[in-house]
Amino acid sequence: MQGFTRRHTVQEALSWLDAQLRTLDAEDVPLRDAAGRVLASAVVSDIDVPGFDRSTMDGYAVVADSTEGATPYNRIPLKVVGDAMPGSPFTRTVARGEAVRIMTGAPLPSGADSVLPAESVDSAGETIAAISEVSPQKNVGHRGEDFVRGTTLLEAGRVLRPQDIGVMSSIGLATARLVCRPRVRLVITGNELLPTGSKPRDYQITDANGPMLAALAERDGAIVDFPGLVQDNPEAILAALGVFETQSPEPKAQSPEPRAQSPDLIIVSGGSSVGIEDHAPMLLAKHGELAVHGIAMRPSSPTGMGTLGSRLVFLLPGNPVSALCAYDFFAGRAIRALGGRSKEWPYRAVRGTLTRKISSPIGRLDYARVKVAPSTALGAGGRVEPLSVAGASVLSSTTRADGFVIVEQDSEGHAAGSDVEVWLYA
Amino acid sequence: MQGFTRRHTVQEALSWLDAQLRTLDAEDVPLRDAAGRVLASAVVSDIDVPGFDRSTMDGYAVVADSTEGATPYNRIPLKVVGDAMPGSPFTRTVARGEAVRIMTGAPLPSGADSVLPAESVDSAGETIAAISEVSPQKNVGHRGEDFVRGTTLLEAGRVLRPQDIGVMSSIGLATARLVCRPRVRLVITGNELLPTGSKPRDYQITDANGPMLAALAERDGAIVDFPGLVQDNPEAILAALGVFETQSPEPKAQSPEPRAQSPDLIIVSGGSSVGIEDHAPMLLAKHGELAVHGIAMRPSSPTGMGTLGSRLVFLLPGNPVSALCAYDFFAGRAIRALGGRSKEWPYRAVRGTLTRKISSPIGRLDYARVKVAPSTALGAGGRVEPLSVAGASVLSSTTRADGFVIVEQDSEGHAAGSDVEVWLYA
Repeated sequence: MQGFTRRHTVQEALSWLDAQLRTLDAEDVPLRDAAGRVLASAVVSDIDVPGFDRSTMDGYAVVADSTEGATPYNRIPLKVVGDAMPGSPFTRTVARGEAVRIMTGAPLPSGADSVLPAESVDSAGETIAAISEVSPQKNVGHRGEDFVRGTTLLEAGRVLRPQDIGVMSSIGLATARLVCRPRVRLVITGNELLPTGSKPRDYQITDANGPMLAALAERDGAIVDFPGLVQDNPEAILAALGVFETQSPEPKAQSPEPRAQSPDLIIVSGGSSVGIEDHAPMLLAKHGELAVHGIAMRPSSPTGMGTLGSRLVFLLPGNPVSALCAYDFFAGRAIRALGGRSKEWPYRAVRGTLTRKISSPIGRLDYARVKVAPSTALGAGGRVEPLSVAGASVLSSTTRADGFVIVEQDSEGHAAGSDVEVWLYA
Repeated sequence: MQGFTRRHTVQEALSWLDAQLRTLDAEDVPLRDAAGRVLASAVVSDIDVPGFDRSTMDGYAVVADSTEGATPYNRIPLKVVGDAMPGSPFTRTVARGEAVRIMTGAPLPSGADSVLPAESVDSAGETIAAISEVSPQKNVGHRGEDFVRGTTLLEAGRVLRPQDIGVMSSIGLATARLVCRPRVRLVITGNELLPTGSKPRDYQITDANGPMLAALAERDGAIVDFPGLVQDNPEAILAALGVFETQSPEPKAQSPEPRAQSPDLIIVSGGSSVGIEDHAPMLLAKHGELAVHGIAMRPSSPTGMGTLGSRLVFLLPGNPVSALCAYDFFAGRAIRALGGRSKEWPYRAVRGTLTRKISSPIGRLDYARVKVAPSTALGAGGRVEPLSVAGASVLSSTTRADGFVIVEQDSEGHAAGSDVEVWLYA
């Protein structure tokens, strides 16, 4: 039971992590499932939109000249020669003095150069009269007016919005080329833990980290594999890390597998420190690389990071508050980057005024949970109240908190009344 | 082909809509699927957390008195009598002069009142010596310290965060009591439309609204039923509205159905105006109630709303920009409210300075798409550029835009250089 001999700074830990991060490969996904995901390549239209000249009003397609001088006192009769509906065009040519009843979106018939709105016409039965003029090209949407073939509509890296999906559909795409979702395996250890759905009893507690980390990773775009709680012994942890899997013979798969089903990233929770029952760091050091272990921050100082083959491995403290903080700083950052998203927090920042001081020793970064007065939600100047928490283990502080304030390692804290940045939990 | 005889104001339309809105019933959902959803009832703990006194450090459980006066020059020997691990307590009583090796989270043995941190001990083999004192209750987390039985942890109406799921799991819950997700049926009409995945050809265009509206409704928490494109004829539209379904005999279901599988809300796209092929308003008026038809706004003025039995029905213009705007104003609001969420836009508002004027006639509300200079993302003062769009039909304007500015109906617009609020598309 020794303490950490040396702690990495958060900045050192992030530098190591960022050097490992790459964007995953791409896959084709049906448009119906593409909203909220990340484009792997730009979307370039191979068609003009609209693909034909069309009416932008309900009215009458005419030769504009025919209506010259029309007013309510100079009604100009027009002969209705047919209808143009969307998908059902008028197929003959419109001459001067003729009109084709046309609906919004319908193709403009040949010969016609404008659309006289319904309100500019006095219609009685089969005869109509223009009661105001229309100028050429009026109320007509031209081929390629929205965009032409070759236009880049969406850039690679974009998180797709619902309307992007609509545009992609409109140019004839069935699928989107997207960055693959990171596969995350959760290895939740602790002999004292009971699975979700069990009532805590005696000296056993019910797992908070598994469901919390699963929800966090899914929020950040991951596909989560959480096979269940793992016993605190080296064999069980190694098996959960998949160390034995990598030595098994190649599967005799007949069908081509575009991408292995094994995880891109493993999150271990519990046993991450230097105590006698903290197996995970030792196992990672032995079978892979333990690049970072012990970080100058609070909570989460007993956090480790490393690699196991091509996989990133995060060793998170079992304490749920520490696990959340270590996820926010490290594991979540990696998941977002692998999936092509911004590495930065998916939290909105607001500014506010601290009601009480937050102290933190020089040399350590602090992640202080705070409550924010509702009026701050959209602007500056709200009240930011640090939560009094006895220790890192106070799980409810993360649900009572609206967000957190960071005290950088070279700062002794923030004075009462100072203006601070708050990251609001999403 | 008559215009609307009178248009409702947006405010009138919203007043009618808000009067129809109620929150849907509740259902029990496994915690694993509860993140991002809305709590239907408060979560009250029926246990104390922690459920027992426990160590908050790795170290030695002792009687604090035993260590009085200990310094590196006054080493006080302690006899190690056992171990306490999480889930594996030390079961005897600790006496003065004794120490139990204890891990973070392990139950504090009876007799002990404090935990001497590993760093305060000089240990060599089986004998240890305290090299600093510890005071009573130090490094101990007490039963109920986080929260006690009866504490309300989460209020009804809360959108569940990942850490909330962790807290709910930790008190032994297997499921969450959530507001049901609204069921939305999409009825996308238009004889000119081809389904997603088809290349536009001749005078046919590929549907943008179906996939866009599906993604919007899912973003707002709905379960979407989009059976496919519907022909522009009264029979097909009526069938898609489910009018005939309501006259069918009751199903002879043996198993109790907690909630009907039929939609809570129907969105019709296309044929919403007053043209000869605009069947939906007439059909809704005949078979249900067409409460609002024609709204003083741009785009989306040919929008209708009403009810069909207990279902809300939204008639959206077929034009994708109008459909998006009408969704933002009306259908999305209803979906969010039915699902227990805030009715307000799920968009973030920022302020910025308009680069060019936006004009709008008095009496009409305008929804103007804008681009925002990236520097505005987190604060005020960025540049807001109105997009030049020829008409409502310019679909790409919704993907080029970062968001929109509203010009209220009693305003003639915003001058260049004025400070405006921008709603950023999510």
